[in-house]
Amino acid sequence: MQLGVVGLGRMGANIARRLIRAGHHIVVQSRNEDSVKAAVADGAIGSADLRDLVAKLEPPRAVWVMLPAGAVTEDTVWQLAELLSPGDTIIDGGNTFWKDDIRRGAALKEKGLHYLDVGTSGGIWGLERGYCLMIGGDTEEVKRLDPIFAALAPGRDAAPATPGREGRDQRVENGYLHAGPCGAGHFVKMIHNGIEYGLMQAYAEGFDILKNANSASLPEEHRFDLPLPDIAEVWRRGSVVSSWLLDLTATALARSPTLSEFPGVVEDSGEGRWTLMAAIEEAVPAEVLSAALYARFRSRQDHTFAEKMLSAMRKGFGGHVEPSQR
Amino acid sequence: MQLGVVGLGRMGANIARRLIRAGHHIVVQSRNEDSVKAAVADGAIGSADLRDLVAKLEPPRAVWVMLPAGAVTEDTVWQLAELLSPGDTIIDGGNTFWKDDIRRGAALKEKGLHYLDVGTSGGIWGLERGYCLMIGGDTEEVKRLDPIFAALAPGRDAAPATPGREGRDQRVENGYLHAGPCGAGHFVKMIHNGIEYGLMQAYAEGFDILKNANSASLPEEHRFDLPLPDIAEVWRRGSVVSSWLLDLTATALARSPTLSEFPGVVEDSGEGRWTLMAAIEEAVPAEVLSAALYARFRSRQDHTFAEKMLSAMRKGFGGHVEPSQR
Amino acid sequence: MQLGVVGLGRMGANIARRLIRAGHHIVVQSRNEDSVKAAVADGAIGSADLRDLVAKLEPPRAVWVMLPAGAVTEDTVWQLAELLSPGDTIIDGGNTFWKDDIRRGAALKEKGLHYLDVGTSGGIWGLERGYCLMIGGDTEEVKRLDPIFAALAPGRDAAPATPGREGRDQRVENGYLHAGPCGAGHFVKMIHNGIEYGLMQAYAEGFDILKNANSASLPEEHRFDLPLPDIAEVWRRGSVVSSWLLDLTATALARSPTLSEFPGVVEDSGEGRWTLMAAIEEAVPAEVLSAALYARFRSRQDHTFAEKMLSAMRKGFGGHVEPSQR
Amino acid sequence: MQLGVVGLGRMGANIARRLIRAGHHIVVQSRNEDSVKAAVADGAIGSADLRDLVAKLEPPRAVWVMLPAGAVTEDTVWQLAELLSPGDTIIDGGNTFWKDDIRRGAALKEKGLHYLDVGTSGGIWGLERGYCLMIGGDTEEVKRLDPIFAALAPGRDAAPATPGREGRDQRVENGYLHAGPCGAGHFVKMIHNGIEYGLMQAYAEGFDILKNANSASLPEEHRFDLPLPDIAEVWRRGSVVSSWLLDLTATALARSPTLSEFPGVVEDSGEGRWTLMAAIEEAVPAEVLSAALYARFRSRQDHTFAEKMLSAMRKGFGGHVEPSQR
Repeated sequence: MQLGVVGLGRMGANIARRLIRAGHHIVVQSRNEDSVKAAVADGAIGSADLRDLVAKLEPPRAVWVMLPAGAVTEDTVWQLAELLSPGDTIIDGGNTFWKDDIRRGAALKEKGLHYLDVGTSGGIWGLERGYCLMIGGDTEEVKRLDPIFAALAPGRDAAPATPGREGRDQRVENGYLHAGPCGAGHFVKMIHNGIEYGLMQAYAEGFDILKNANSASLPEEHRFDLPLPDIAEVWRRGSVVSSWLLDLTATALARSPTLSEFPGVVEDSGEGRWTLMAAIEEAVPAEVLSAALYARFRSRQDHTFAEKMLSAMRKGFGGHVEPSQR
Repeated sequence: MQLGVVGLGRMGANIARRLIRAGHHIVVQSRNEDSVKAAVADGAIGSADLRDLVAKLEPPRAVWVMLPAGAVTEDTVWQLAELLSPGDTIIDGGNTFWKDDIRRGAALKEKGLHYLDVGTSGGIWGLERGYCLMIGGDTEEVKRLDPIFAALAPGRDAAPATPGREGRDQRVENGYLHAGPCGAGHFVKMIHNGIEYGLMQAYAEGFDILKNANSASLPEEHRFDLPLPDIAEVWRRGSVVSSWLLDLTATALARSPTLSEFPGVVEDSGEGRWTLMAAIEEAVPAEVLSAALYARFRSRQDHTFAEKMLSAMRKGFGGHVEPSQR
Repeated sequence: MQLGVVGLGRMGANIARRLIRAGHHIVVQSRNEDSVKAAVADGAIGSADLRDLVAKLEPPRAVWVMLPAGAVTEDTVWQLAELLSPGDTIIDGGNTFWKDDIRRGAALKEKGLHYLDVGTSGGIWGLERGYCLMIGGDTEEVKRLDPIFAALAPGRDAAPATPGREGRDQRVENGYLHAGPCGAGHFVKMIHNGIEYGLMQAYAEGFDILKNANSASLPEEHRFDLPLPDIAEVWRRGSVVSSWLLDLTATALARSPTLSEFPGVVEDSGEGRWTLMAAIEEAVPAEVLSAALYARFRSRQDHTFAEKMLSAMRKGFGGHVEPSQR
Repeated sequence: MQLGVVGLGRMGANIARRLIRAGHHIVVQSRNEDSVKAAVADGAIGSADLRDLVAKLEPPRAVWVMLPAGAVTEDTVWQLAELLSPGDTIIDGGNTFWKDDIRRGAALKEKGLHYLDVGTSGGIWGLERGYCLMIGGDTEEVKRLDPIFAALAPGRDAAPATPGREGRDQRVENGYLHAGPCGAGHFVKMIHNGIEYGLMQAYAEGFDILKNANSASLPEEHRFDLPLPDIAEVWRRGSVVSSWLLDLTATALARSPTLSEFPGVVEDSGEGRWTLMAAIEEAVPAEVLSAALYARFRSRQDHTFAEKMLSAMRKGFGGHVEPSQR
């Protein structure tokens, strides 16, 4: 099947590659010429620009946009909308805000274009491991592009079967889901990432307590020097907390038991934030997901103004002067 | 190898069974005679009481106590201490508070007895899947009982190898860890459970937001009816949030998409609480692990007094009268 | 000075009354005719509808809209915009979202109209105690309407002077603040309410712990039956936690030590939610303000779906069956 | 009335001074001779050591210990216990853990000594403003020492009367409370401080959002430069969030609008921690009080190990490399 892929960063390049390996005909475009060359070397068809990419596809076309969410993706979608013909499809595989999908989908529909929002999880491992796909948009269009999704997804063997799923949508067990109408794909991916933040913070806090079990502030008979790399490893087998994130943690700790090469500054992408906004709009308590995001916000500051306020109040009522720094 | 097992509940009975299957000689004891009979039918040697159990083992003996943490375990340990001889070993495989282990270990040492605290994860799946073991106590004694631990643990094949572990303790990769001196085993198991609470709450909040995406309070064009069982299933392959807990969630949702058979009252065992106490003693921020525990506390109340306080204040300053119930 | 007041609910009626007492000429309008009559009895000038209200004011007019935030206020603002003349001013004293203010202010400016957003705190006590006003909009217009703001505000004597404020804006010490351009008034009021939620929850949790100090789950020698009404009262004098909210709490508990007449269902208005959204947009950690909002969300549900998820997982890995209800 | 005061730090010295002003006979003791001299200059009777202090009091004696909680207080209590006679009373006015009070009270009772635990709030302002006292211990002994408590407390005029308190304990309205048996005083004071942390953090987060309203990460049309000192000031009159902590905040911000002299490192005393332990023991959700404590823990670290863990995982699944520091 033919597919255009726009954006050849870490994710886009591997998506193209995985599709080529599956026998699909992939036309690629990137502002970075070297990326295009590399993809061509792997079997892709290169293109000079978006117009050229569209020209190299036969209608009904489908173009997968894999670019940073926000202005870059927005611009590209509208440029493509100008170049494509009724019946063609734009797929946004990035991390777009789901309300933007709904807005775009409605506007493109008026032009006779289809729009699919495809939340794509898999990171740098997707090429080999496959991508978990969460798709929003029209049923017919999702069906038409099934060979693409099937090729990208990890496939049934990636996990043991779940009992009780007889009669349910088989695509799901191959690792791709038609979640609902336009926006639903990115909504589900957003929550996926919100959960991801929460899971990561749960492990992080637990290991922080393990590490500080030898803190000098504890009574000597209650201190432990715990082997963090071995703890991560042992939990991978037979324990309730085994997971892929734990596998990655075990690898990281085996390589670097103190993780001292990491400064401790943690970025966040939009999804963690939007997850909370969705929770607030729905009036769903989301304490853990919030705390996970706030921990990242805090990690990026030397000290918050809030902390200075606390010291100012403490001085005000108690004359307390804080130590300059621990 | 010989081992006494005291306590034949869900965990103890299966531990005995897994050891018997591995060829060990297991003498069992339980206040429930039917449990003893069932174990004997599976190949265990029964005993009339603790004295009889001890008599049926050859020194140096080892007795694995698998009872509810707290008074029952405490009593049993001290009864065994009276019956055993210097050089013998008591293993506490339950969820004992680690400071109790340190106290017990020191007192038993004075009697010439060994004490191992073995955090045991695996739940009802351990018989087939193996148990993840976190062991605290003397190095020599842990070595002596290695055949027991090796038989209980899941074994190397339970997970793919972690790169970079060359030269590290090989027992860990079989699923059992000598974490440190007395208390260290239960300390690590405690944090394991603390993390478990956090992971569970992260998934729970995320699915709650997914479920409420069709809330009537949202603008109609922003609502989704999302297929929860399929979302859990699709994330099992290729996504960042795949885990054993997610596998279990997928199974539960496949069976019952609304989970309406669960009232929503959630128990907690001691470990989640002790994890927070450890965090507080170490001055480690543990927001996510706390929130996870508090969500369970809250689930067990109709309404908190705190909530009534809020209404009282709202009435006080604004004359607000709350609706009687949503 | 002349002022139109639209909306004669709890807040609007008292605002009109306080202004009349200060000698201002107040023209009132409400969909509720009885409210208009009551205000006229107190010295207001009644009006038949918005057109009549506008007709009864001399240019440059000012109309204070005191209606529920959202559609009702939005409609009224645009109806007034049709009726007013260039140079006139619309004041939104309700709890409007600050981004709506910015949008409205810009649109009204094109019509030659002024728009002030005035966050108004004081609840049912404002008539006697005065209103704390947080004003956004053009400096000149804020100055022109100073007599109105000065009459509504509590005045300097409402609190002891703060040392070190020499040379600063004196209006502030009378209880009204020109916070900045359009939107700034409601932004500051929004954070005021966000803080209010946090303060309330802090007291609520503390009193909950005090109340449960006699819990049957505690060892008998560690239980206390604490006199909640007296604790609230004693903290009002000389302690660090004295506040107006504590005064109200002491009154509520004196009247009803168990607060059993309150079901424990707690509403939230938009400001607590918008406060979190502002925090998220600014990447400011706001753990306490979030927790305070989530506690209210939780209070309005019997059980969350999240809680059912936890039980389902617990059953999955441990075979745990929760008690049906505590 | 006679009273011994041991410990002449910020609190102890002012307590002695306030009692002397009220006409009581105060014998003081401190390891710091200059403090003793200063107290004597203010009208106290000095003492060479604890033995001398005891000798200078007539039975039944009462000695107020005002020392740092922990070992120093513990030692002093037991030294006094050796020197005092049956019928005498030791008062612990510090911030002792309430379970220690219960233990001490029981042991001292066997020696015929009384023990009162008196939670004392008021900080550096107590001398003029009076101290809020929360008293645990025997009713008779609390009554006998009433003149001391009455002199220390702020008195009825410190706050307007609460309606509905007719018939209740009048001491409470003077600012001192007999909260219950031994331990109850410090338990109530502990929760007082827990609430204090929560209140402080609520203000701190709110002002942090106000301060960052001009963040460069926001769209320019949505930024505000807000006058923090004026906001704190205006909320002191007529608003729902007025409090003594807000008064102190207004003073601090008037003096230093950016609070740049405060590094942002915030200490915590034991009470915030013990409050959470009490909440956990009682199974009361205490999200806000926890978050307030954790914010302080976090403020004292450059980066947590948890944050490094997050970066390690992000690198593991997505190849993300964090910026070295914002």
